[in-house]
Formats: sequence, C-alpha cells, structure tokens
Amino acid sequence: MATVVSLEARERATQPAVGAATPTRLALLGLGQVGSAVARLAPAVSPQLERSLHITGALVRDVLRRRACDVTVTNDARSLLDDRPDVVVEALGGLEPARSLALDAIERGIPVVTANKSVVAAHGDELLDAAARRGVPFRYEASVIAGVPFLCTFARRPIAAGVTQIAGIVNGTSHFVLSRIQTGSTYADALAEAQRRGFAEPDPSKDIEGGDAAEKLAILLRHFGRLRVRPSDIETSGIGSITPADLTQAAVFGATIKPVAFADWTGSHTPAAFVGPALVPAGHPLAGLRGVTNGICLRGPVCGTLVFSGPGAGPEVTAATLLDDVVEALADRCEPREFEIATSCRPEAPRGLGWFVRLRSAGRLPEAVDVADLLASHDVWCSRTSSTTTADGCESRWLQTHPCSEGRATAALDALRIGASCDLWRIPVLETIDAE
Amino acid sequence: MATVVSLEARERATQPAVGAATPTRLALLGLGQVGSAVARLAPAVSPQLERSLHITGALVRDVLRRRACDVTVTNDARSLLDDRPDVVVEALGGLEPARSLALDAIERGIPVVTANKSVVAAHGDELLDAAARRGVPFRYEASVIAGVPFLCTFARRPIAAGVTQIAGIVNGTSHFVLSRIQTGSTYADALAEAQRRGFAEPDPSKDIEGGDAAEKLAILLRHFGRLRVRPSDIETSGIGSITPADLTQAAVFGATIKPVAFADWTGSHTPAAFVGPALVPAGHPLAGLRGVTNGICLRGPVCGTLVFSGPGAGPEVTAATLLDDVVEALADRCEPREFEIATSCRPEAPRGLGWFVRLRSAGRLPEAVDVADLLASHDVWCSRTSSTTTADGCESRWLQTHPCSEGRATAALDALRIGASCDLWRIPVLETIDAE
Repeated sequence: MATVVSLEARERATQPAVGAATPTRLALLGLGQVGSAVARLAPAVSPQLERSLHITGALVRDVLRRRACDVTVTNDARSLLDDRPDVVVEALGGLEPARSLALDAIERGIPVVTANKSVVAAHGDELLDAAARRGVPFRYEASVIAGVPFLCTFARRPIAAGVTQIAGIVNGTSHFVLSRIQTGSTYADALAEAQRRGFAEPDPSKDIEGGDAAEKLAILLRHFGRLRVRPSDIETSGIGSITPADLTQAAVFGATIKPVAFADWTGSHTPAAFVGPALVPAGHPLAGLRGVTNGICLRGPVCGTLVFSGPGAGPEVTAATLLDDVVEALADRCEPREFEIATSCRPEAPRGLGWFVRLRSAGRLPEAVDVADLLASHDVWCSRTSSTTTADGCESRWLQTHPCSEGRATAALDALRIGASCDLWRIPVLETIDAE
Repeated sequence: MATVVSLEARERATQPAVGAATPTRLALLGLGQVGSAVARLAPAVSPQLERSLHITGALVRDVLRRRACDVTVTNDARSLLDDRPDVVVEALGGLEPARSLALDAIERGIPVVTANKSVVAAHGDELLDAAARRGVPFRYEASVIAGVPFLCTFARRPIAAGVTQIAGIVNGTSHFVLSRIQTGSTYADALAEAQRRGFAEPDPSKDIEGGDAAEKLAILLRHFGRLRVRPSDIETSGIGSITPADLTQAAVFGATIKPVAFADWTGSHTPAAFVGPALVPAGHPLAGLRGVTNGICLRGPVCGTLVFSGPGAGPEVTAATLLDDVVEALADRCEPREFEIATSCRPEAPRGLGWFVRLRSAGRLPEAVDVADLLASHDVWCSRTSSTTTADGCESRWLQTHPCSEGRATAALDALRIGASCDLWRIPVLETIDAE
C-alpha cells in the first residue's frame, strides 16, 4: 500500500475504490479455531477494505467433517497453492507441515501470513531467508500478543526499534491463572476456569510451564535485538510453584507476581533472559495488567519506556491481526535481497535483578535478622522480610533482596538453604520504572 | 521501504547497504528545542540507517544568534526548498509560516514530516489533500504522544483501526501537575516544578487549560474516525479547578483524577467528546500512568481494548519520532490520488458517563441521604458519597453518580445547586474496563 499519509490508508480502506479492484484471493492453511475465525471475519471486514477478501479454499486433515463455516475444504495442499492465491494464511499451528507449506508458498512467490509462534521461533531464519531471496512478504504480527500490532511498527522505524530491554506478559493463560489465585482461587480451580472459558488448551502445559512464552521471547529477541536464540536455551520456569501465600506476601511488599518474559541486552551482545514468574513492583507498567491481558514494556536509550497492551490471544483478535497482515503484505512491494542472519547466542541468567525468596521449614526458621546477616556475609542485602506460620505448623518466610548478580544470589541462598535446612524458592524482581 | 518481513527493515536499517546509498538530504524548518534535537540526533542515528542523514540547512528567524549545533542556518525558506532536499522536517510550531512552508514543500514534491499538532489539527485536511494530489508523503506521528509510534501502525491496518472510542492522557504537563498534587504538592508548586524541569512552557496555559489536548483529540478523531472536528468545538476544561482534597476523595472512591481527552462515536456519526479532568477508576488502564507519561486507550468492536503508553513530549523523543517518520516517508511510494475529505461535525457532550461531583458551602450542606433523594427524583443515582469540613469551616461533599445522560445530570445537579445553595463542580467518570 502506498501510504501517502497516515490517514489515507484508512480512507482508502473504508471506501471501495472506484472501479473496485478484483478481490484478494486468500488460501487458508488450517480451519481450526483461528482458521475458522479468519473465514468468518473475512467477509465481515471486506467492505472496509480496498479489495474484498475471497477465500479460495482451506487445507484440512478431514474433508468429510462437518464445519460451521462455508469454505471449500481440501486435504491437498498442492492444489491449493497451484491455484495461485494472492496470499496464504497459515493457521495450522505446530512445526510441520506448517514450515514446509509456508516455504513452498514463498518459493512460489506467494506472500505468507502466520500466527504460528512455534514455526516462527524455530524456523524464522529459514522462512525469512526464503522470503528475502524471493522478495515475498512473510508476516507474523499475530505470533506475539496477537491482538496488539507492534512488531510491524518497529520494523519500519529503526530508531524506535533500538530497544535493549524487553519485559512482557505474553501468555494469557498463565496470567489469568495467577490473577485468579490473587483474588482467592486455588491453582486447580483457576486452571479449570481458564479451560472452561477457552483461555487454556486441553493440555495447558506449554502455557503454564512457560514454553509458549519462551517461543515468543525468541521471536522478540530476533525482531528487536537481531539475536537468534533457541527457546529451549532460555531459562524457563512455570507458575505451578506459586502459592496464594506468595501472592499475599508480594502484596505486603508493594508488588504482585506476574508471568514474565524478560530479556536485556543493554551494552552486551549476549542477552540476559528468563521466562517465569517474577515479582513486579506496583508502579511497574506490567503490574496493573489483569486477567488474560498481555502487555510488553520496551526500553531503549533514545526512546525511554514504551508500553503496549491488549488481548494476547483468542480466535477473533488473532484473525483480525492476520487479516491486517494480509492487507500489509499485499501493500508491500519487495525486492529480492540478501537475508542477513541474526547473531546466534545462548542467553545468560538475568544480571543485576533483585530476588523474591521464600524459605519454608517443617520446624523453626532462623530469625529474620540472622537470615539477613548470613546473606549480607555473601554481599546480598535484604530490603524486606515477612513471615507466617501456616496451618500445618510449617513456618514460611519471604524476603526481597536488593539487585545483585545471579552468581552471588545463588551462593548466598545455597548457604542459607544448607545453614537453615529449609526449602528455598526464589523468583527475580523486575526493577521499578520511574515515570517522569 | 519495501518491507519484505518485519525483521528485514530493522536489519537493513542497522547495516549500511553494500555500495551504500547517498545520504538523505534533510531540510529543517526551525531550530528551537525540537529542531536542535533533530540536528543533534541525526548524525548519532545515521549509522543505524540504510541511508545516513545530512542536514542541508535550517530555517531560523535570527541567523546571527549563536547556536550549539553545527548546522547551516538561513532565514530564506525559499532557498532551502530550492535546494531540493529529499525531505523537510517542520519544527517551527504554530500555524504560520508552518502551514505555508509545508504546503510549498509538498507542492514541490518534497515529503514533509511534522510534530506540529496545531497545524495538523487546524490545516490537516488542506495538507493531506495537497499530499494526496501530489503523491507526496506527509507524516505527523510525533504530533500526538510524541514518543509512542501508533498512528502509523493503524494507518496501515484497517481492521485494527476500526476503533470507536478513544480515551487518552495526551498532555504531559497537566498530567505531571496532577500527579504532583496527588503526592502532596500545591498546584502552584507543581506547575513551577514542571516549568523548572522543562515539562511546561513559560506560558503553560495551553497545556493546563486543555487547548493542547483538544488539538490532539481533533487529530485522533480525523485519524481513527474520519471525523473532522475543530479543536474549539470540543468541550474543554482545564485542571486549575482540581484541589488536593478532590484527589484525596477520588482515592477514597477507588479512583484517581487524570487529564483526559475522550471521544466515543460507537454507533453514531457524531462523536461525544470532551477534554478535561476525569475520574478514572483504579482498574482503568490510564489510572496507573504517572508523572509526564502519556497513554491512549483505543476500543473497538473487533479488537477489544488496546493501550499504548510512553513519553508524550521532550525534544529527544520527538526528534527520534520525526526521524523515524523521515525513514518511513522515504520508504513510501505514493501515487497521486483523490483526497477524500473527512466528515465535518461538532462533537456532543459525553453520553452515558457517570459524574464525580463536589458540593461546597460556606454553611451546612444537606445530609447525604437528602442529596441522594433529590438526585434520584431526577433519575440520577449516587453510587458513593463522602464529606469533610475544611479548616475555613466550609463543608464539602463529594459524590459519584451512576452513568446517565449529560442532560439529566445537568438538570439534577442544577436543582441540587439551587436547592442546597452551594457551589457545585463536576467532572465525568470514565467507565471501568474489565480485563479478562
């Protein structure tokens, strides 16, 4: 699209052009929840677009299954591509055949749009390379925080894109579960509710254990940092270890616990990164997000702190983002070019963060002052401490440390665990962001 | 820029192309705070760009004045444009000569980038029309929430752009002052601090009284709603009437007071709009923003609630956004086309919002229950009430009503003012946004 002005694209989009162009012929790979939503939304939004959308067919595994949407289905991917659609929307999920079919389409010169974070995280370089060589758009805005357009923005704006730290809530299921625990649910009830309401998969382990967020963080690291990271190399922990008491104590410390994806490559070629629950101070932009809402906080030396939030999943919002990507893909005019591979690296543990620590013992824990002294002897400094005795007679104590290196924290906390013969659990603390 | 993929633009931007292109020749109109920041930032960011930036000259009023930045200055605008720069950055501010020079550049086929909200609000149609006719980019991302790119995003994404409600904090000065009052400053001290720290102009009236925010709201209404509204037609009030006690009582009601720009055109061709302080419930995305931070909450039927926040002003972030706009303007390939004028309308008062009301009397105010009864007799329903007696013996009472029409609220509150012979002050209440 030749955007004369910001307004113009919207205007052209909402008014069919005189002598309106032929419809955009769109082939759908997959007709599950997202694919069906694309099929439903396409005719509904067509009047707002310069070119209406016509779905030429959808690739499905079982052509005989009855479906609610009125789309020609096939199990022959080749015939769908042989039909030369203007654009392919990949909504299969998973690695294969999504990867092969996306590559096939690109090699044929057909633009590809996807919401598939797994394939973009694992095979992004290969797909981007093929797209660059062929001069074909390959877009994946819906792969991270599906309902919030921001990847495309920064791709066109190199100065704003110079961020060096990312902190995000990029998984709605785990966010919903933690939000529910905070308001009194048990973990099991919260997860069951998430499944009942369609926020969680029947097998929610990838959401709950952080695998989904690690894939998204890998995509963000490539997009913003030109860093190629394998999701499995990112230190990842799930939210299963969080207790209602942890959330209560977090509030006592003026904070909350959120499922976070974090990476920082300020002044370094190797990012420090983790995926997992983190203590988030009340004033941090992520602290105020609730329910299934996703959000991302981008920080850089020139542009300060930018925060984008909104729906992170759901068939409708994902379909809307895919279709906007279709509009953008068809507006792009690409020249074939050389693809420049991102720097491959293995992220390190986070540097210079504080820690929120839970000690738990069947017997008595050492006094708070003795705990603080022991940690101080390792040059780790407590900022807050608090304790309770639970109904089962176990004593629990929570403490928060000032920022320190991961190595120093590990040494100090190992010494504490052994010295106090207690269970010890810890999560990082995001630094406060002062707004002014 | 032919964005093959989201990653690609960033990659090309951060690596000088082989056989690197000639520099982009940029003419600056104005060398005040923003213009100087553009001159400073341009060489610093050039290594990240595909084409480096060369400033051909800057238009200034007084060529003899000593300046910190090393840029050729002239007071002859014509010579600057005769020199055929690749792009013009307009950083003069105000209506003239900004409007005439931008038009002159566009007519010569030179892309124009501006941060000047006054000229975009007042003459946007004229400038956009000229740009469309000539097929020349005219970009104004920095005119609203200067540090946060979002206008350009939605211009390219027609489905996401289908929002029908906007609520934003778009003026950093008034936000800073209210934030400071909330933490104990007086209005005068807060404003003096804002001026000392460079957040407020020497004459801050346009910020404090809402004129600046009304211009930005007019730009947003054109951009998102295709609605042409004169800033002076938007009901605008300033923050001068807010007392520390109002902020304290807002907190008692589980809310805060923010300087808001609001418009809603859901199901209507006439927007309801206002600029002024509003009660914002604690869970609302705008409630958590602090200091000078700006933010905008966009709502639509397909895309749910999207929130974007970050720095709203400051020479550095404004210059960064202008230079990203330069990159985008030079990447756009525009065809001349017919400009379609937005719908001209006069906004109405907000519909269906609640009200936060302060009653104040030198003597005694009626009992809370009597106030509630009187309002109820006009079909206006109190949700909360609270009162204090101040040191001067005046009694003040605050109440919050359930949503009702503006007309009904006016009738009920007029009756109350007369019946109770008291001073009465009110601001709208933004509706709670449930995240889930």
